[in-house]
Amino acid sequence: MLTGQQADRPGSTTYAAAGVDVEGEERGMGGLLAWAQQSFTLRLGPGRPCLPLGYYANVLDLGNGTGLAISTDGVGTKLFIAELMHRYDTVGIDCIAMNVNDVLCVGAEPIAMVDYVAVEAPHADFLEQLGRGLYEGARRARITIPGGELAQVREMIRGVRPGYGFDLVGTAVGTVPLDRIIVGERVEPGDSVVGLRSSGLHSNGYTLARRVFFDRLGWTVDRYVPEFGRSLGEELLEPTRIYVPEVLDMLRAGLDIRGLIHVTGDGFLNLVRLKAEVGVVVEQLPEPLAVFAVLQEAGGVTDEEMYSVYNMGIGFCVVVPERDVERVISIARSHGVEGYRIGYTVADARRTVRLEPLGLIGRGSAFQRAGTNR
Amino acid sequence: MLTGQQADRPGSTTYAAAGVDVEGEERGMGGLLAWAQQSFTLRLGPGRPCLPLGYYANVLDLGNGTGLAISTDGVGTKLFIAELMHRYDTVGIDCIAMNVNDVLCVGAEPIAMVDYVAVEAPHADFLEQLGRGLYEGARRARITIPGGELAQVREMIRGVRPGYGFDLVGTAVGTVPLDRIIVGERVEPGDSVVGLRSSGLHSNGYTLARRVFFDRLGWTVDRYVPEFGRSLGEELLEPTRIYVPEVLDMLRAGLDIRGLIHVTGDGFLNLVRLKAEVGVVVEQLPEPLAVFAVLQEAGGVTDEEMYSVYNMGIGFCVVVPERDVERVISIARSHGVEGYRIGYTVADARRTVRLEPLGLIGRGSAFQRAGTNR
Repeated sequence: MLTGQQADRPGSTTYAAAGVDVEGEERGMGGLLAWAQQSFTLRLGPGRPCLPLGYYANVLDLGNGTGLAISTDGVGTKLFIAELMHRYDTVGIDCIAMNVNDVLCVGAEPIAMVDYVAVEAPHADFLEQLGRGLYEGARRARITIPGGELAQVREMIRGVRPGYGFDLVGTAVGTVPLDRIIVGERVEPGDSVVGLRSSGLHSNGYTLARRVFFDRLGWTVDRYVPEFGRSLGEELLEPTRIYVPEVLDMLRAGLDIRGLIHVTGDGFLNLVRLKAEVGVVVEQLPEPLAVFAVLQEAGGVTDEEMYSVYNMGIGFCVVVPERDVERVISIARSHGVEGYRIGYTVADARRTVRLEPLGLIGRGSAFQRAGTNR
Repeated sequence: MLTGQQADRPGSTTYAAAGVDVEGEERGMGGLLAWAQQSFTLRLGPGRPCLPLGYYANVLDLGNGTGLAISTDGVGTKLFIAELMHRYDTVGIDCIAMNVNDVLCVGAEPIAMVDYVAVEAPHADFLEQLGRGLYEGARRARITIPGGELAQVREMIRGVRPGYGFDLVGTAVGTVPLDRIIVGERVEPGDSVVGLRSSGLHSNGYTLARRVFFDRLGWTVDRYVPEFGRSLGEELLEPTRIYVPEVLDMLRAGLDIRGLIHVTGDGFLNLVRLKAEVGVVVEQLPEPLAVFAVLQEAGGVTDEEMYSVYNMGIGFCVVVPERDVERVISIARSHGVEGYRIGYTVADARRTVRLEPLGLIGRGSAFQRAGTNR
């Protein structure tokens, strides 16, 4: 991983330096994952997981050819932006988005999400706003919120506004016929990767973003930023885009969708989270959204770091044979979302992501400059 | 509610005085719940929720008569005991237990649980222990752990051991034929309530328990307590009992099970969480487990408070017609769990819980002495 080296480079800001221990997390995860994987043997009949760990969602075999997709995710430290703005009616959208977009990636139709809210204190206005955002997310994703849990754990939770610290987590479920699960198995070399526009940072990389904007630049959430055309806080609070309606339309239109990719925590390294042994060559990218450009420039963050943490303006990718590219783009457009053919797949057991416009090569958990010795 | 008054009574300790704002939570919850309930209209076909909010779990209609039960819950501040003991291999059992016991209450067979772990830091040994507990819980409940999320949110989480603060939450799913959902609808006056023995505090009321044992008595987790036959920490860390195998056996044995009750946060007030308009008369109770007796005595906690917060030794109840009582008890016994016929149901639109041995009457969210003016 390059993050360790970069952390020492003067003038640059990295995820590791910002306090996220990526290597430690990967080491630590090993034991936890091994036990979870071992649990798979506990059910061989109904309810058995159809996929190994590591995909965006798992699928449980409910019998009669029905699969239940399930995935869990939290909003993370984007919640601190809500606290700083004292505005809580949008992070529910993020919570729904992060979860339904994951469930969507296995080809499933999301049907519901349950929420877990841990709070320092149960302020009524705060909870009402939270509920409003969750409802709005549910509306966009066409799902229900059939249940949830409010945990009052004052001594366990903290935030950036005293008394208002909270955590917000969801678990989404969806249905998919077992013979229509999508895991990138049928991806072939030469397939096209279509990227769909993101709305902003979505819900990833806020620890680094906060270091840059608040600590390094000393900006506050109410600072007007000309490049954003609004305040820093409003920009950072922009809800994660929910790709459910357009992707379901693509699936129902009979397009030959071979891979679905939610561009989350690992940025463009997600592009090879496909079962087939392929790499991805990215030939062209739309201009990054302003929030990424400003963040990178102000933070002196390298391209390597930016593209391994952020979506840079592409929040979701659809892998299809060349002939379906235009249909994907036009269906996305009909939902108000720009789509771009950003690249194509190649046979590659090492699963390399090549970002040609930037001269970057990514494998495993990091990008590096093309031509650098490994 | 009586908690407010009791907080002022010298020498007594209550949930409210211990820092849990029950009234505030109920007020605050209103807005959040209203939005969640409104989301139910967003899906009228497949995936629609079959139950209103407020049951132990909801059930989603997956079509073809199949229901998916879903519920989410966290372990709460029992996690602090794990931190104090620096022992993390049992709280995973609690996480599984709290969730599968809820799913069980609607008559569903739990099949899987996903976990969410939020940590200050991803210590490898800690995570491995956590995974071991989750696996053990999954084994006891006969479910898998098909996925999960590890969130490294150092600034959002805190605990009682610096660097080791964490939160642990689960979402469990299960299956139930739509025509066999149990919500207490068929409960009739005169049905019997069979209580199943708990293993200890389970995962409720730890904020009050910590105030009593640690703050009031000044005990530490390694203090040997003769009544427990082990240290305070070992007693408090005793995992929540998982009632899945015995209750599934009861369901499969064709017993006429009309109500299933997981005795959690509201203690014995849970006994009337049944759709039928019934009250419950508790005629006899087994001796409370030692942990409750010591806690109550040492903390000067009233009966009213104890029975509205704790399970007092009865962690799960099964409501059946009189003729099935012996079968319920014998099936429980075959799984090593003591069962007792503790009382019976009566027609009562006000849903009163009468604890005859204690002279207590409970309605809504509190118990009070029988005969007290209302």
